[in-house]
Amino acid sequence: MSQNDPLVIFTPSGKRGHFPNGTKVLDAARQLGVDLDSVCGGRGICSKCQVQPSFGDFSKHGITSQPDALSDWNAVEERYKSIRGLIDGRRLGCQAQVNGDVVIDVPPESQVHKQVVRKSADTREIVLDPATRLYYVEVEEPDMHEPSGDLERLSKALAEQWNLPNTTSDLRIMQHLQPALRQGKWKVTVAVYQGKGLGEARIIHVWPGYYEGTIYGLAIDLGSTTIAAHLCDLQTGKVLTSSGIMNPQIRFGEDLMSRVSYSMMNPGGAAEMTTAVRTALQALVNTVAAEAIIDPALIVEAVFVANPVMHHLLLGIDPVELGQAPFALATSDSMTLWASELDLTMHPSASIYILPCIAGHVGADAAAVALSEAPNRSEDLVLIVDVGTNAEILLGNKHKVLACSSPTGPAFEGAQISSGQRAAPGAIERVEINPVTKEPRFRVIGSEKWSDEDGFTEEAGTITGICGSGIIEAIAEMRMAGLVDPSGLIGSAAQTGTERCMPNGRTHEYVLFEGDGTSPRITVTNGDVRAIQLAKAALYAGARLLMDQMGVDEVDRVVLAGAFGAHISPKHAMVLGMIPDCDVEKVTSAGNAAGTGARIALLNAAARREVESTVRQIVKVETAVEPRFQEHFVAASNIPHATDAYAKLRAIAPLPDVSFNTNGEEGGRRRRRRG
Amino acid sequence: MSQNDPLVIFTPSGKRGHFPNGTKVLDAARQLGVDLDSVCGGRGICSKCQVQPSFGDFSKHGITSQPDALSDWNAVEERYKSIRGLIDGRRLGCQAQVNGDVVIDVPPESQVHKQVVRKSADTREIVLDPATRLYYVEVEEPDMHEPSGDLERLSKALAEQWNLPNTTSDLRIMQHLQPALRQGKWKVTVAVYQGKGLGEARIIHVWPGYYEGTIYGLAIDLGSTTIAAHLCDLQTGKVLTSSGIMNPQIRFGEDLMSRVSYSMMNPGGAAEMTTAVRTALQALVNTVAAEAIIDPALIVEAVFVANPVMHHLLLGIDPVELGQAPFALATSDSMTLWASELDLTMHPSASIYILPCIAGHVGADAAAVALSEAPNRSEDLVLIVDVGTNAEILLGNKHKVLACSSPTGPAFEGAQISSGQRAAPGAIERVEINPVTKEPRFRVIGSEKWSDEDGFTEEAGTITGICGSGIIEAIAEMRMAGLVDPSGLIGSAAQTGTERCMPNGRTHEYVLFEGDGTSPRITVTNGDVRAIQLAKAALYAGARLLMDQMGVDEVDRVVLAGAFGAHISPKHAMVLGMIPDCDVEKVTSAGNAAGTGARIALLNAAARREVESTVRQIVKVETAVEPRFQEHFVAASNIPHATDAYAKLRAIAPLPDVSFNTNGEEGGRRRRRRG
Repeated sequence: MSQNDPLVIFTPSGKRGHFPNGTKVLDAARQLGVDLDSVCGGRGICSKCQVQPSFGDFSKHGITSQPDALSDWNAVEERYKSIRGLIDGRRLGCQAQVNGDVVIDVPPESQVHKQVVRKSADTREIVLDPATRLYYVEVEEPDMHEPSGDLERLSKALAEQWNLPNTTSDLRIMQHLQPALRQGKWKVTVAVYQGKGLGEARIIHVWPGYYEGTIYGLAIDLGSTTIAAHLCDLQTGKVLTSSGIMNPQIRFGEDLMSRVSYSMMNPGGAAEMTTAVRTALQALVNTVAAEAIIDPALIVEAVFVANPVMHHLLLGIDPVELGQAPFALATSDSMTLWASELDLTMHPSASIYILPCIAGHVGADAAAVALSEAPNRSEDLVLIVDVGTNAEILLGNKHKVLACSSPTGPAFEGAQISSGQRAAPGAIERVEINPVTKEPRFRVIGSEKWSDEDGFTEEAGTITGICGSGIIEAIAEMRMAGLVDPSGLIGSAAQTGTERCMPNGRTHEYVLFEGDGTSPRITVTNGDVRAIQLAKAALYAGARLLMDQMGVDEVDRVVLAGAFGAHISPKHAMVLGMIPDCDVEKVTSAGNAAGTGARIALLNAAARREVESTVRQIVKVETAVEPRFQEHFVAASNIPHATDAYAKLRAIAPLPDVSFNTNGEEGGRRRRRRG
Repeated sequence: MSQNDPLVIFTPSGKRGHFPNGTKVLDAARQLGVDLDSVCGGRGICSKCQVQPSFGDFSKHGITSQPDALSDWNAVEERYKSIRGLIDGRRLGCQAQVNGDVVIDVPPESQVHKQVVRKSADTREIVLDPATRLYYVEVEEPDMHEPSGDLERLSKALAEQWNLPNTTSDLRIMQHLQPALRQGKWKVTVAVYQGKGLGEARIIHVWPGYYEGTIYGLAIDLGSTTIAAHLCDLQTGKVLTSSGIMNPQIRFGEDLMSRVSYSMMNPGGAAEMTTAVRTALQALVNTVAAEAIIDPALIVEAVFVANPVMHHLLLGIDPVELGQAPFALATSDSMTLWASELDLTMHPSASIYILPCIAGHVGADAAAVALSEAPNRSEDLVLIVDVGTNAEILLGNKHKVLACSSPTGPAFEGAQISSGQRAAPGAIERVEINPVTKEPRFRVIGSEKWSDEDGFTEEAGTITGICGSGIIEAIAEMRMAGLVDPSGLIGSAAQTGTERCMPNGRTHEYVLFEGDGTSPRITVTNGDVRAIQLAKAALYAGARLLMDQMGVDEVDRVVLAGAFGAHISPKHAMVLGMIPDCDVEKVTSAGNAAGTGARIALLNAAARREVESTVRQIVKVETAVEPRFQEHFVAASNIPHATDAYAKLRAIAPLPDVSFNTNGEEGGRRRRRRG
């Protein structure tokens, strides 16, 4: 190309270069390294290389783009447009040729490395770069005088036409290749998986001719309580459907340690739990496929994140070692398996990528949170708390990241609470208590109205209980209204000045809702307060232990992760002392960060290498054998805390200095759980 | 090491070096690159590093080896000897230390790259270097403050103690690793498979502690008619047992083309044949394991050779494309699979290596012959003929190798012969006809005596028929005795002067055996002669086509391969004109060269790379579409040949110039078969 040749400028990249008349736009783009997609290799079939030329004066670029700057429509383009249609002004980059200076825009959907849209703006971008891609190739016909296998000629075509040398394939491909090649008249579309561990580039499917459809991937967050799956289009990165089911292992034990115990006490118990979770996963695969109305056999990849016990049980590894020091994982590295090895039926050559585990108590789910929230890239010191039955906690910045897990138990999810229930329609999820009248108002899931607003009863329907975020708000509001003291004792009617505080055995309870013909009476008992105290103390103690290790007394910001974390009110969480004192506007929710991490690893193969590297740099802190954990736990049992002043919190929230202790009772029994 | 340090000389390698006092013999050997085995890594457990020190004056080496040149026996050696025993004079190389100049012999069984003994002296050596080896390692115990998975610490141990970086493993290893490590007190023996296609180094088994046993491999020659398996000890290279069974696919068609036809005519026919052969292979695996009294789960590898149709049917690939030009293979490269992919139960992580195919009619069996007989290393021009239902033919020397296959049909194996039978006790295998009296004598399988010797009847028992080598000798002898003319016609009693030539329809037959109370009458009919003519003409025509391509009229030597090839008399083969004229002493038998090639690939991983490279250099000649094949075939129908003088043969064998053609009949119908 010389300076006299036409100048081609691509937007939005701004890449530019001179090309001789007659150069195809796709070729120009490739020579400049412009991100322009093509599946069919420039044969006018796939339309992935659509571009939008602009004409007129472009003083910004210093050129004038004449209406005839590109060649006239050729037969291939005309035919494509007449059959498939093409947005006005668009051209096929593999057909249109450069005739003069021109500005050419590459629309987002024509970029190979598309940016996947995420809901919240402050989270990291996902750049689409999946491990499995489609390639259209033309294969040489066999020649008996130069004999070579059909598979070897397909591999040669991939090497020559797509720069994919040394492809491998499994037996199934060899069994189906010959009819596909002949049916497609020696043109086929192949799906190639490029991943560590199964060979550099593996042919996993062959379609005769040009395959019009797409291929899919699943991001799965396998939690102790729930299993969530996101079905993604691997060619656009879009989430087509998300679905969740309960983990059927709950019947073997609510928390992790009870499942490990089940395995230890019952020969074959681990295998039983493995079968249960794999069966549920298959049901989930079938469900998301049905919801998206796709063939499950088109799901070619899945990514899993899970805590270590779930991880081992998924893999069929007895988790017994995770139940006792030194909490040895059977394997900690990431792994790539065939779906069939996990008894999952999707694409017959589907691969499964499982993120690495950080430690015996800090699993692939925490690794996924690290991938999604990227504490290792943070300028300021961030505390990330993934709230669940077992909390995973990360603390760090771009210099250093620490991790631990803490056995909060299921109280935050509404279990072990007298009126507790899982988050579902009818559950109280928001609570306010008037500090003067001590009267409550609340909202239930499924209704936008507060309980003191007109039409609430009709809209809310039956009120069934209180969910995790509801109990946190209720107790925090009780603390701010002076109904519960720092030690966690609920005051009597006499002490608090409200008849809603009623005796319940040797302690008191606060009546949140009197009940009516259809809905039960809902109270917060002192036992409920104790359960939440244990859970939040464990959470705080874990975070505090990491802060000790980091040598800091405060953090710059807090991220609440986990499906439940999305619903926690930062102020109420801080009043309870779940998290350290912090500017409340610096507390944000990341939603299901583990699930997001799984989705990132699904859509961007490089992110897998990134998280593997990140995990190796994370310093693991083992809470179970750390004496200071117990100290921190005891001090954190108070609401918000026995020794920490929570000065920032006090500036925005009343924390009345009441005490309802009349008989020296204190703090409740403490016990240690995992799960 | 300095020149003042003791001089250590290893035999038989002659490697020598100075080492400081106290150096362990194993360490000295390793530093010098002496081939001294060790599985336990020098821990005095495995005894693989046994050496034999010699003492006295060694003028040849210029040193005197004093009786105290090695350290005294230490506790480990004493303990080993008391428990396991040790040959007098032997020491453990990992325990004995150098104290002075010494000559140390490494006995053959202590060499890693042992030479495997082969029966015939003129064949290539096999150097033991299997893809799967055992390694004893000590693994770091888990540390919760430096968490890592047990598998990752095992990998680290293999990297550090055995220089095996980046080992991978399958899910089964992860499932069984934790109990094995704890049972072995963090010492385990692992089997590591190093092969292309499944990752560089894959852990396939873990035994707690030091594993005393061995591991096994199978070399399998999957023929159209028979399947032969050799069970080898992968630590010594010894063949423990060999066993063969009939290929059950025979019921779908005797030769290859009839099986391809079966697949084309019957939907599901290919799958049916795949199931049949896999079932038979499993039975064969179980049989060889039972014969050797070993657990089939200790068979960690198998190598297969097969012709292309057998190859495809084994893999579950419909062979339909192999039945028509251009005879496209689904895949031609070598491949590595899991045994489970072929429904074979042996070690659960056993791998299968299948040699590459050369062309649509020249399969992995021919590749194995090329590996075993190495025409590409030959100084002189060698013709290698693998005689079977389909003959594979190789011609070449170190400059160039050509290959083709030829459809000889099953006549050479006794099929299509009136009294024909497979080689089994009671079958006539050797024949001589007195050129003067025209009287025959013969030997049968199972007896050392000729039929005219005393005691023959008692020793031979019932005579049941005539096998492939028997019919070849019979017809060649008939030709030399003037009973059959060059065109293949058997003369009448009047023409030949013997009453043994009797009418049979419009032609004649020769009575080889009159029959008695228990044994049937056995004759050679003119139809038998025709069947052999067709088969041998196809064989010769293939060889001749390669000679044309090579531009030669004669070859320096001929190798007869194939299980049947071992029994063919070179002179008789040449009288029949099966092979081109040649000095008869230059015709040798290689036995089952394909099976030997499989065994080489099993025992020496480098041989796999070698055969893959060799196959790429072989020039394939397709007989099916070559017009000259038909010309050669017609000329080769005569006995020995219509136009070739066979001058070398005539010098040693009478070829009477008789003609029994009285009615213009000639040569018989010609037809073309494959298989």
